Amino acid sequence: MAVTHSPFPDLPAVAGFRLASTACGLKQSGAADLLLVEMAAESCAAGLFTRNQVVAAPVTLCRHRLQQSKQTARALLVNAGNANAVNGEQGMQDALALSRQVSERLQVADEQVLLASTGVIGVPLPVQKPLQAIPQLVAALQPAGWDRAAQAIMTTDTFAKGAGRTIVLGGATVQLVGICKGAGMIHPDMATMLAFLFTDAAVDPALLQSMLQQAVEKSFNSISVDGDTSTNDTVLLFASGRSGAPVVTDLAGPEGQLLSHALIELCQELAQAIVRDGEGASKFIAITVEEARNGEEAKQIAMAVAKSPLVKTACAGSDPNWGRILAAVGYAGVPLAADRLSLWLGDVPVVEKGGRRGSYTKEQGEAVMQQEEIAIRIALGLGEASHTVWSCDLTHGYITINAEYHT
Amino acid sequence: MAVTHSPFPDLPAVAGFRLASTACGLKQSGAADLLLVEMAAESCAAGLFTRNQVVAAPVTLCRHRLQQSKQTARALLVNAGNANAVNGEQGMQDALALSRQVSERLQVADEQVLLASTGVIGVPLPVQKPLQAIPQLVAALQPAGWDRAAQAIMTTDTFAKGAGRTIVLGGATVQLVGICKGAGMIHPDMATMLAFLFTDAAVDPALLQSMLQQAVEKSFNSISVDGDTSTNDTVLLFASGRSGAPVVTDLAGPEGQLLSHALIELCQELAQAIVRDGEGASKFIAITVEEARNGEEAKQIAMAVAKSPLVKTACAGSDPNWGRILAAVGYAGVPLAADRLSLWLGDVPVVEKGGRRGSYTKEQGEAVMQQEEIAIRIALGLGEASHTVWSCDLTHGYITINAEYHT
Repeated sequence: MAVTHSPFPDLPAVAGFRLASTACGLKQSGAADLLLVEMAAESCAAGLFTRNQVVAAPVTLCRHRLQQSKQTARALLVNAGNANAVNGEQGMQDALALSRQVSERLQVADEQVLLASTGVIGVPLPVQKPLQAIPQLVAALQPAGWDRAAQAIMTTDTFAKGAGRTIVLGGATVQLVGICKGAGMIHPDMATMLAFLFTDAAVDPALLQSMLQQAVEKSFNSISVDGDTSTNDTVLLFASGRSGAPVVTDLAGPEGQLLSHALIELCQELAQAIVRDGEGASKFIAITVEEARNGEEAKQIAMAVAKSPLVKTACAGSDPNWGRILAAVGYAGVPLAADRLSLWLGDVPVVEKGGRRGSYTKEQGEAVMQQEEIAIRIALGLGEASHTVWSCDLTHGYITINAEYHT
Repeated sequence: MAVTHSPFPDLPAVAGFRLASTACGLKQSGAADLLLVEMAAESCAAGLFTRNQVVAAPVTLCRHRLQQSKQTARALLVNAGNANAVNGEQGMQDALALSRQVSERLQVADEQVLLASTGVIGVPLPVQKPLQAIPQLVAALQPAGWDRAAQAIMTTDTFAKGAGRTIVLGGATVQLVGICKGAGMIHPDMATMLAFLFTDAAVDPALLQSMLQQAVEKSFNSISVDGDTSTNDTVLLFASGRSGAPVVTDLAGPEGQLLSHALIELCQELAQAIVRDGEGASKFIAITVEEARNGEEAKQIAMAVAKSPLVKTACAGSDPNWGRILAAVGYAGVPLAADRLSLWLGDVPVVEKGGRRGSYTKEQGEAVMQQEEIAIRIALGLGEASHTVWSCDLTHGYITINAEYHT
């Protein structure tokens, strides 16, 4: 089950990147499970990783290598079907073996190879399978095929997720392409959200990292499927600089703003696709908190509403249960003036000054809650900041997937 | 559906308290929905309330009155079927009218009357119904009937919850009796955990408040059904001083310790009953975190595991999915040494030094997870503090109750 979504878009080649994917046997289904992306010389990289303290070997390795290589990168290898997490020292040995195989075959420095894994936790990686597949991947590298790339990183996703943006910077056409998979801890041992973003813009490495942070805050960090955080969550952004556009050195300048805005849009489209494919999801919920003192408080409240099992089940049942929404607003941990709260379901005003509006009828609320896309808007009456997060409903489908499917 | 539990115990009268309950028409079912407890002169009271910032009128009133009356109390009126929350100024007027009716009939000071409500949020209280029932309640006051009292405060609870302890203090027999209802936000608009504790011990008021805080921390604040917090959560402890035992003035003295320990046990029994009756619960889960640097960190981690939808669905499905447990440990926000983590399911060692034990088999784990009571134990290897929390599984029953039942 998934909320209605757009088909995979027709995504262009991005100068400086070549890719290839295959089925190496990690997925029992025989579906594609290994992706290699090669980057042109002088490509740079930025990364954000799970805040979980129990992390998979590839996450530890990537964090270390982004520092070691001063954010230069030449290759990315991603496998699905095994998370290579909680495998102790052997997990790191396996990750290093994979990275060495890639660096030797592509003749690049070991520290410029980044890795990501997703799948079962605590089961040793059958490392020979991906190791043996790497030579054929290297031979098959080509400039596009983003749909197959997105398929190769799927676990329980029901559709492949990709998006693109084209902008013009200093007269040159710049491409941004992203692929991603699965939200949070979304399946029995099939953990992890992964997103990989590629652009041929040229960006100063320090800038690339802050640009990524900003975009992730407004996209992947603003969604919730079940509130669990995986051991493997990874977002990587690569910039090859091969578009011919001038190097972006200032986030506040017009080029910086244009690129940054396109990256935020790209990440939001990908993040929303993850929510639409949330386990058992039948509805897409957008929660906007307005009139907050600052953006962080707005986000904190919106996330509390997004994560509430009671709000999520009310959406599943098309129940305009606004009391549950206000309760979640109240326990979010942000100081409030309860008598200034307003609440809308879609365009229907429900609460004003902390009390139910006289004009509100339950039928109005039901008409909104019955839709497949539900907008919840809360105004705090405290300031001018706002934040939107995206969530999905909590259904029998989620329980079936997570309780009845066994490892 | 509820986990197996003990029948309602035969609870004794507690000197200094008289009670009466009735059906005043707030519950559509016609079941009992109004409880009045009268306390002897010089009774004192302590209270703890929801941390939610959107609070019901009776909560606001109780907080104010405990200060105003210097923790003296003469009466408690509780209604079920309507939360009297998010009703604006009218909500407070209704609460004041109820309290005035009680104080006039019992001839006590208005500020010595405490109130609690549970039920639908945002629907004005039909205040005439309880107002008209108060005279007959006053006339019916008697020394016991805890089972009927517990029934009158139920909403979606499937069984009435009560417990008692008897101790000897300075040669006198001291009784402690408690009743409670429902966990967290547990039903469509039928919010709220309420617990009321009564003892005939004599306790210094300041001491009574710290004693209650300590007991609640280890009981009602150490359980999780769905992580939502209601607008009405209330725990009140009343001490009549009518047992004849000497006044307890020191928590660290032998009498203080004895009474304090009995109160903790009483609250834990009540809190566990709430978990056993969690919406849709089919399993009772005890999560112990050991070898923490301090009790707060141990609790923080245990609560993260208790709240994880993925751990809760794994328990529902009898799936020994220890990767999900470790993931929750990792995102709890407490600094860890991942290579020192150990994990047991029941008595079965699963993880040591951050990796799966060679001797562990999935069949061993399954045998534990198939039981109706599941113990999960995590050792951090960082210190000597520990904390246990209690939780229940997440089942189709929860979704059915919360998504398919309409307000």
